[in-house]
Parts: sequence; structure tokens; C-alpha cells
Amino acid sequence: MSTPAKGYAAKSAESDLALWQFERRTPRADDVAIEILYCGVCHSDLHFARDDWGMATYPVVPGHEIVGRVTAVGSEVTQYSEGDLVGVGCMVDACRQCSACNEGLENYCAQGFVMTYGSPDLHDGTLTQGGYSDSVVVSERFVVRMPEGIDLKSAAPLLCAGITTYSPLKHYGVKPGHRVGVIGMGGLGHMGVKLAKALGAEVTLFTRSQSKKAEAQRQGADHVVISTDEQQMADVTETFDFMLDTVPVQHDINPYLNALKPDGTHILVGLLEPIDPAIMGANLVFRRRVLAGSLIGGMPETQEVLDFCADNGITCDVEMIDIANINEAWERMKQGDVRYRFVIDMASIKETAAA
Amino acid sequence: MSTPAKGYAAKSAESDLALWQFERRTPRADDVAIEILYCGVCHSDLHFARDDWGMATYPVVPGHEIVGRVTAVGSEVTQYSEGDLVGVGCMVDACRQCSACNEGLENYCAQGFVMTYGSPDLHDGTLTQGGYSDSVVVSERFVVRMPEGIDLKSAAPLLCAGITTYSPLKHYGVKPGHRVGVIGMGGLGHMGVKLAKALGAEVTLFTRSQSKKAEAQRQGADHVVISTDEQQMADVTETFDFMLDTVPVQHDINPYLNALKPDGTHILVGLLEPIDPAIMGANLVFRRRVLAGSLIGGMPETQEVLDFCADNGITCDVEMIDIANINEAWERMKQGDVRYRFVIDMASIKETAAA
Repeated sequence: MSTPAKGYAAKSAESDLALWQFERRTPRADDVAIEILYCGVCHSDLHFARDDWGMATYPVVPGHEIVGRVTAVGSEVTQYSEGDLVGVGCMVDACRQCSACNEGLENYCAQGFVMTYGSPDLHDGTLTQGGYSDSVVVSERFVVRMPEGIDLKSAAPLLCAGITTYSPLKHYGVKPGHRVGVIGMGGLGHMGVKLAKALGAEVTLFTRSQSKKAEAQRQGADHVVISTDEQQMADVTETFDFMLDTVPVQHDINPYLNALKPDGTHILVGLLEPIDPAIMGANLVFRRRVLAGSLIGGMPETQEVLDFCADNGITCDVEMIDIANINEAWERMKQGDVRYRFVIDMASIKETAAA
Repeated sequence: MSTPAKGYAAKSAESDLALWQFERRTPRADDVAIEILYCGVCHSDLHFARDDWGMATYPVVPGHEIVGRVTAVGSEVTQYSEGDLVGVGCMVDACRQCSACNEGLENYCAQGFVMTYGSPDLHDGTLTQGGYSDSVVVSERFVVRMPEGIDLKSAAPLLCAGITTYSPLKHYGVKPGHRVGVIGMGGLGHMGVKLAKALGAEVTLFTRSQSKKAEAQRQGADHVVISTDEQQMADVTETFDFMLDTVPVQHDINPYLNALKPDGTHILVGLLEPIDPAIMGANLVFRRRVLAGSLIGGMPETQEVLDFCADNGITCDVEMIDIANINEAWERMKQGDVRYRFVIDMASIKETAAA
């Protein structure tokens, strides 16, 4: 009971992505079948496939920033019908029973959510496969609707980079009058700048790179601080309400803590590793500061960020690629050579054939 | 313009405390002069005098858990008069102009508050001297009133150990239905247990020492977890709303983070050093957990904790000592041999003479 599908998969931590023929399940009663139009390329895709986190499964079709069109729905689906434009993000299922799921925070499901790729399906145990593919089948609870008029290509990264930065900004109540620092300007950081600005905050981008200054201002940043310049860092001591820290690799958090006012909050959205250099306890205690983490967002909030972006004319800056160029795109992404998200035009998979 | 005073002072990082004759200023217009009846002995006293924090000044008379009786007031004092029973905690002044001061959070004063001992006075630059003394002179804003009927001896430690644990519990809104873990059962920890319990929470004490189990239950803890027992720690995974971490030395915070529910908050009140072992970023990010710091409390809240304790019959467990035994008491405190706070009966200083 399944349908042939085409995807680009990694067969090992060392292998390039290559065309792979596999099967998508026939929709269950609550499933939506989707023809994928676009899929964003997230750094996590590479980390997972290269087994940087020690949790890889193979073959794996990466991709969790999926935009597509509904081609079929199960008998109990009520929210979507054939032809609807929809999105799928980082999750495709969860226990649906714990208090987090009941609050629409499936991202914090007590059992752990089912990832869009590389997780066992809760019903048949098959490994989920992601959006570097021509199609996907997902339970409707984990599908969102693309708002009227949104640019589909540049909306794809909202399903991960957008929700990951929007969720903590909303959770902590960022609003006009707040001063928000955004650390790093990659896929997440440039969305953080746009979203914090749209929420009314005064936004400062922190970057090591002088070359990103004009660009950051174009994205809407009110100020830019070169984080390697000690004087510039000293000048912003105790001036921020929030720091949105999008850096996914180890870095010294202490200088940013010192830039927070008393009661200020430093939010990690990308750092999963040990926090090294060590945080000075005094930097939290002496100013009642807070170090917080945040992971993507729940399904209602994922719909909300799409609607918010449509309403506020916010899009992700994307560079379109064909699926055949995915390995080169991953190499460029590793070098930081992308402004700010690659998105695969999935029409390009139709003509590909296995090597 | 000053009055002779007697105190026990350290003259260097290595010297024992010994009787020292010094001067207290004649009260300024907003000052309250206080005869000290009792003074609690806080571990910070020892850290400061031994220059463990690299900020010591000498000679220093330690002591910031002061209870006494008003002997004179300046011409503009409105809240206190001769004979009143009052307290003085860790602060004796602040800028009084910044937003923190304006909110009654003098403990987070933008200029840094003036410590009860070892800080330059903001008016005359003389170094402040603390409560191991027969008298003290303090601006009325930094004086609190002892509630009617409170036991003065056991109330002294509320000025530091009490407010330090009460302030974050109130700030984070601990209330019935919450599960609160208290880590460590020294002077702060045993107050944390009593205060969290009085606020209606279900309280678990985390301790390395099996021997403290019965004692913790006597203090009001509903449960005790032996933190070195991996099975006991595993059994409480993701079950707490708050952790109140009173441990002042480096320790691994990760096992306690894992004991927090999603959105749970780990509050540091004693750890000022680098946080080592390193915190795993994932332990914050994957569950939207929060690591927070908190430092004593503001003046209105210091009055509040005294009133709260009087209303709820909460006292600190104290062991009374004479000032002549202070060096021995410090040795015992270093060994953890005190349940749970030494308090100096300051009447004992009257008979002492310089060695």
C-alpha cells in the first residue's frame, strides 16, 4: 500500500546525496498527500546526514522546510483538500496526549516528536523521509496552510528558520520599547532581525564580520555591533532586554550576557553542545539575568508565523537551486556562502534519473 | 564627628578575626544609629575576609545579618525612632536614581549597591564596616522593621539567607501546584525548603548526604532525593517546575536541568564561578528550559520576607555563639558543621577587650 517517490538521499555519512527511488505510504485516514514544490536547505540537514549528532539513519532524504500542493487526503481529514497549498516543517507527529501536545507545543512532546526525516513512524515503524523529494504524506495535524498571496519559494524557510526565531520572540513577549540583539546573520539570524523588527523592537545585529553591516541594515537592523570589537561591546553594556543567539557552534556567551540589562534574557536557539567557554555564574546572579533555550515551535505557532509574515510582507531571502546542485549547495552552506537560504525548486527532480 | 565602636575585624586574608576599636559616623539627616543585638554568620563573610573573591579591603568587620535597636535618628528620618527593633541586611546604600532603584530593586542598582561591609561610603568614601560589632549607622532606606513578636535571634539570618531564597521564589511566582526542588541544605537551602513550602509548593530536597534525609523532612521537605544516586535522579526526570540551587561551589547542573519539566527554571543563588562542568545547550533548547540567577533581594522585598516569616511562623534554625568564638565558628562553618546558621549574641562583645 504505497506510492513510488523520488528523493535525494545520503546512504552514509560520507556519501554525496544522490537520487533514490523509495515509497511513500498510501494516505491513512488523517493523512494529507503532498506534491512538493519547494524545499528549503537547513544546516541541520547536513549535520544529520553527516551524522554529526550521532543519530543518523540511512538512507536519509533530508529536508524539513517543505511547501507543496495537496494531491489527496484521507477519509477523516477536515482541514485540507486537493489543490490546497500547504507546508510541513520539522515535525510530522508526536504523542498527542502529553501536556505539551495538549497545549500545541508538540515540539516539546514528552515522548519526543517524530522528525520529518530520520525518525520511526509511530504506526508502522518505517523511517520518515524528508522534503528533498517529489512528495510527502503527513498527518493533517502537522500540516500548515500557506497564507493567500505569500511567495511560496521564500516562505519555505519559515517552516524552520522562521518559526525557530519567531517562537521565542513571542514566548518572551518582545514588543515595542524592547531592545533586541540578534547574534549571527545566517538563515536564522536574518529572520530574527526581520521578525524582531516587525514585532516593534529596536534591533541590533551582532556579527564578527564588518562586511555584513550594510546588509544587516538592509534587513532592518537599527544598529550593528561588531562582536570582536571590545570597545563596541563595552559601549552596549547592560542595554538589551533580549539576545536571540542563533550561533550553532561553541562561542563565549559571557560578553553577550554583560550586554543585557538586569532581568534580560539570552535565548539559545542553535547551540546544542556543551557551553564552552563556561558561563560565569556571577553574570546571571548579579543581574538576575536569564539564559534560556528554545526549539522550533508548536504547530499553532507555525501557522501563526506564516500568517504573521504574510500580513507583514516578511520573506526569507533565498537563492533557488535545482536538486542536481544540492551537493554543491551543501558545500557552499558549510562555507557560509549563502544569503540566506538555499531553496530547492522541486520541479527539477522530475527530469533527474539515477546516476 | 563620630562615635567609638567595637568590632571583630580581619586585618588580612590570613589573620584571625580580633577585637578592633573603630569609629561609626555621627548620624546624617537620613541615618538611623543602631545598637546591634544579634548578627548572623554568613559564608560570604568568610569568603570576603579571606579574599576568595579578590575584592577584600582591610581591616574589615564582616556581618550582614544584623538585628538591633535604634538608639538615635537623624533629623529627616520618618520611619524609625529610638527604641525600634530593626534589621540591616547586605546593602546599606545604592544610587537611588536608576530604574532598578526606582523599582525597589536596589540589589540590582546600575552603579552597584554599597555593601554592608567593604564598600566605600558614597558620601565620605570611608569603608563600610559590618555587623560583627556593637553598633552600626545606616540610612533609613536600607533599614527594615522587625515584625511584632518575631524571634530576633532566629530572624537575623532572614536578612541574607531568607531574602536570597525568598526573592526568586516570589519573582518566579512559586505557588500551590508547583513542584520545587531545593539543592543543598545549608543556611540558604533550609530556608528555601521552609519558604517554598510556606508558599504552597511540593518541595523536594536534593542532597548528597543520606544523613540529611530525616532532617530535611523535619524542615518541611515532602521528598528527599540523594543526588549521587543515579536511579533516584532518573526517577525524577522532567518532574519539577523549579530548582532553587543554593550550592556555592562548582557542580554539574545538567542532571538537575534534566529533572525540570519543559519551561522549568533552574535558579542559581550561590554560584558565582564559571559553570563547570559545562551546561549542555541541548538541555536548555530541547525543553525550553531556563537557567536564571538571583542576588539577595530589594529593600521592600526584604521587609516582605520578614513579615511573611512572622505571619507564617517561619524561623531560621540557629546556633548562638559569643563573639569570642567567631574564629572557631568560621572553622566549623567551613566544614559544614552548623545547623544551619551561627548567630552572634552581640551582648558578648561588651565584655571583650583587645588581646
